[in-house]
Amino acid sequence: MSSNGKFIVIEGLEGAGKSTAIATVKQYLESRGHQVVCTREPGGTPLAEQLRSLVKQADLQEQIAPETELLLMYASRVQLLTNVIRPALSAGNWVLADRHDLSSRAYQGGGRQLGDQLIDTLRQAVLGNTRPDLTLYLDLDPALGLARAASRGELDRIEQEQLGFFQRTRAKYLEIAGKEPNIVVIDASQPLAEVQRALLTALAAAGV
Amino acid sequence: MSSNGKFIVIEGLEGAGKSTAIATVKQYLESRGHQVVCTREPGGTPLAEQLRSLVKQADLQEQIAPETELLLMYASRVQLLTNVIRPALSAGNWVLADRHDLSSRAYQGGGRQLGDQLIDTLRQAVLGNTRPDLTLYLDLDPALGLARAASRGELDRIEQEQLGFFQRTRAKYLEIAGKEPNIVVIDASQPLAEVQRALLTALAAAGV
Repeated sequence: MSSNGKFIVIEGLEGAGKSTAIATVKQYLESRGHQVVCTREPGGTPLAEQLRSLVKQADLQEQIAPETELLLMYASRVQLLTNVIRPALSAGNWVLADRHDLSSRAYQGGGRQLGDQLIDTLRQAVLGNTRPDLTLYLDLDPALGLARAASRGELDRIEQEQLGFFQRTRAKYLEIAGKEPNIVVIDASQPLAEVQRALLTALAAAGV
Repeated sequence: MSSNGKFIVIEGLEGAGKSTAIATVKQYLESRGHQVVCTREPGGTPLAEQLRSLVKQADLQEQIAPETELLLMYASRVQLLTNVIRPALSAGNWVLADRHDLSSRAYQGGGRQLGDQLIDTLRQAVLGNTRPDLTLYLDLDPALGLARAASRGELDRIEQEQLGFFQRTRAKYLEIAGKEPNIVVIDASQPLAEVQRALLTALAAAGV
C-alpha cells in the first residue's frame, strides 16, 4: 500500500452546494483518521490567490480573451499542484479540493466553447501525472444554482455570465462524467440530507 | 499588397539596449510613413500589466514554478495579441514589440530549462497564426548586460537570477536565431552608432 494520500475533488456550478459538501467530506475523512489538506481553485497559494482576484474581478477595463482565462486557470493550478497538492500527497496527507482540472474543462471548454482539443493539449503538457482519485460533481440546474449564488451577494466576473454559459458548462460536466469512471454525479437538487448520504455512499463505493 | 501592417520584435537580455533600439526603429518606421504601435511583454494591456507585476515581484512569499511562469507569460501574450497586436495589424498599423514569443522560448526554455517541446506545444496551441515578420535580437554577454541593468536600480525577480540562467538564455536565443530565417542577430557590444547602423541595415535587408 502506498503511503501517499488520496486526492478528492468537489466540483459543480455556483450555488450547487460545494462548501457544504466539502465540510461533509472533510469530517468523514478525518473520522477515518486521515489528515486532510483543503484547497480551492483558482487560488490556494499566495500567487494563485492573486491570480484568482485578477480573473474574477468584475470591473476590469478590458475583455479577457477565453484563451487568456484558460492559461490563468492553469497557471494557478500548476502553482497549487507544485507547491501544495503534490507535497501534501507525498507527505501522506489527503487533499480535498474545491475545484480542479475538471472546472476548466467544463467552464472554459464548455461555457467558453474553447473545445476539448486545446484544453487536452494544455493539461497534458503542464499537469504532470497528478490526477484526482475521485471527483464528486454536484449537478444542479444552473437557474437554481445562480439564484442561490445571487442571494449570497455580489456576483464576480464569471458568475455574471448569461444562463447559456452555465448551461453549456453543465452539459460539458455531464458529458465528461459520462465518459470517465472516477467522476461521480451527485444530484444536488435533493434535500441536504440526501446529498450528504449520496456523497458518503460515493466515497464508500470508491473504497475511500 | 496586403493592407496589414508588419510585426517587428526587439529581443535581448536585460541591459542589451532594447529601449534605445526601439526608439531607433520607431523613428525609422515613422520616417517611412508607417503608424507604429509599441508594445511590451509581459504587459501591454491592463490585465497583462497586472500579470507583469505579479511575475516580476521580487518579494513573493513562495517560489514560482517554472511552468507557472511560462503560463503567465503566455496568458499575458495571448491577451496582448487578442486585444492590441492583431487589431493594430488589421487596421494597417505596424507593431513594434519590446519582447514577444522568442523571450519565453529563450528565458523559460533555455534559462529555466523547460525545454523546447513543452513550449512548442503551448505556443502552437494558443498563439494562432500571428507571427513576427522580423525579430531583431540584441546579443550581449550577460555579464555586461547585467552590470548595465544593475546600474539602473533595483533588480526584479527575474533579473535577480544567477549568471548561469542568463548564459543559458543567451545560448537558447542564439540557437533559435541560427535556425529561423526571420531572426537577425545584432552585436550589441558595439558602439551605439554601430548598433543603430546594424538595426537599419537589417530592416532594409528585410525590405522594411
